[in-house]
Amino acid sequence: MDDFALRELPEAPLARDQLRVRNHWLSVDPYMRGRMNDAKSYTASFQLGQPMTGGAIGEVIESHMDGFAPGDLILHMGGWRDGGVIGLDMSPFKLPADSLAGGMPPQTFLHNMGLTGGTAWIGLLRVAAAKAGDTVFVSAAAGAVGSAVVQIAKAREMIVIGSAGGAEKCAWISELGADAVVDYKAGPVLDGLAAALDSLGKPGIDIYFDNVGGEHLDAAFACANDFARFAICGMIDVYNDGHPQQMHHLIRTIPARIRMEGFIYTDQFFDCMEEFYADMGGLIASGAVTMRETVHHGLEAAPDAFLGLFAGANIGKMLVRL
Amino acid sequence: MDDFALRELPEAPLARDQLRVRNHWLSVDPYMRGRMNDAKSYTASFQLGQPMTGGAIGEVIESHMDGFAPGDLILHMGGWRDGGVIGLDMSPFKLPADSLAGGMPPQTFLHNMGLTGGTAWIGLLRVAAAKAGDTVFVSAAAGAVGSAVVQIAKAREMIVIGSAGGAEKCAWISELGADAVVDYKAGPVLDGLAAALDSLGKPGIDIYFDNVGGEHLDAAFACANDFARFAICGMIDVYNDGHPQQMHHLIRTIPARIRMEGFIYTDQFFDCMEEFYADMGGLIASGAVTMRETVHHGLEAAPDAFLGLFAGANIGKMLVRL
Repeated sequence: MDDFALRELPEAPLARDQLRVRNHWLSVDPYMRGRMNDAKSYTASFQLGQPMTGGAIGEVIESHMDGFAPGDLILHMGGWRDGGVIGLDMSPFKLPADSLAGGMPPQTFLHNMGLTGGTAWIGLLRVAAAKAGDTVFVSAAAGAVGSAVVQIAKAREMIVIGSAGGAEKCAWISELGADAVVDYKAGPVLDGLAAALDSLGKPGIDIYFDNVGGEHLDAAFACANDFARFAICGMIDVYNDGHPQQMHHLIRTIPARIRMEGFIYTDQFFDCMEEFYADMGGLIASGAVTMRETVHHGLEAAPDAFLGLFAGANIGKMLVRL
Repeated sequence: MDDFALRELPEAPLARDQLRVRNHWLSVDPYMRGRMNDAKSYTASFQLGQPMTGGAIGEVIESHMDGFAPGDLILHMGGWRDGGVIGLDMSPFKLPADSLAGGMPPQTFLHNMGLTGGTAWIGLLRVAAAKAGDTVFVSAAAGAVGSAVVQIAKAREMIVIGSAGGAEKCAWISELGADAVVDYKAGPVLDGLAAALDSLGKPGIDIYFDNVGGEHLDAAFACANDFARFAICGMIDVYNDGHPQQMHHLIRTIPARIRMEGFIYTDQFFDCMEEFYADMGGLIASGAVTMRETVHHGLEAAPDAFLGLFAGANIGKMLVRL
């Protein structure tokens, strides 16, 4: 907690292509931890003494930017503050009026209609090209991304096996609709996945959505059907661990003609934004895809909310309400 | 040698959809070793007491099959015999008349115009979608497939780094046109690849054509540029070795958005056969792609030729002339 400070900043006048915004919702996300290191990655590091940035939903108070007017609700990347001046570098985006008119809560754009839901939708349907009838294996299936993958896959008539650690999380994955579960704390992942496939009468998996890497990824190689597609979203097993991954089954890449592909949400999102909003909006409106929210209140609660992510204090998406 | 027997078989009458063929050239290939095991793979196991099959070039003596006439030169899968009856199950294929008229030796269809050249061409240009200007890393670059990859890549204006074991093979890769070489017997592959990239002033590789797996594959992950494509053709390092592959750099799949794909020649060949024959035929005719041949004579020499593959007795493609 000593690493965070709350600062009052003076109100600046607006320049051209700037908005004055009052924030309503802030997102806190695991990827922000990586940005606190001074290491090269696909997002820039945070700067000491500067406000944290991140996804936020706010209301426009004053606009010097074409296309935005006071009262508009926007998604932007200038989070972790009550409000302030937002320029083009913070990627302001007006929330779709028809979604809001349809009754969708604005903070949905910070999870299922935003980063986490978009990552699930893009990885499953575009990167892995999953289709009805496919057998899908998803790791960290109780997480924000994983639980969206489970629900999208079920809504699209796939057979879903989800893995998570412990009976409680596994029970929740089943509630979300998974056809079988693998509790990786109960035994080797490969044994659990093989037993799940047996129980479903399926010979192998067509799709693997990877949030974990390591033993999960190796089990997916072992159980892949011919022409299986792996969408690699995260490898949380190895983020804090310098050990090599022990791959026994990587060689199945060749006889099974497996395609494995790493992806990042922002690379693909703008290409498919309209289709995503229409499709995911429909799945949410029908109740096929849901999201639990854990909400903290007030800007001063943001560090607590963030640190809670790493202590398992959240169920579903962690948010801060201002 | 005791595992092979030479048998005289009676001449059978021809049924409908059969050809009588006199063989001129037999191919012996490393993949045949896998078919001698009683294990499930992408090709069926050989049967004890039955003739070995495999790629061969023969001349039609008598035809009960539409589209074939005596005198036609054909490629078929009924190898390891002087001749005999060839049915549809042996995939008889008439060699393109214009290639033969252009002076191409018929046995070229057992290497650069066949399995090895086709594997190189499909893997590099279709699976990995390599294009002019790409930096390409190929392992086992002195092998029949690898040396074709080096030459096709150079003809298509790519920058090529080839790896092989020992100074002699590395010198030959350079003669074929590789811009830099990695001698994997001289030190860690990753050090060699990093030094090769430095010498070329390149930040990383766009394409990896894998014949080896293991340490080579891990080094490719370590040095991959964003959106690199890996075509996985073979993992000879692990065929005879139950040890897991130690992958330190697999996690780069995500930040570099790497796409890795295993492939098998026969899956894709018939989709692109015309384009392949035209393109590869042109590269061979112009001298851009060459192949050394090691030729044994007579059917009784076939087991020696085959066993020689595993003793490093061949340079380029190993063939038997009947």
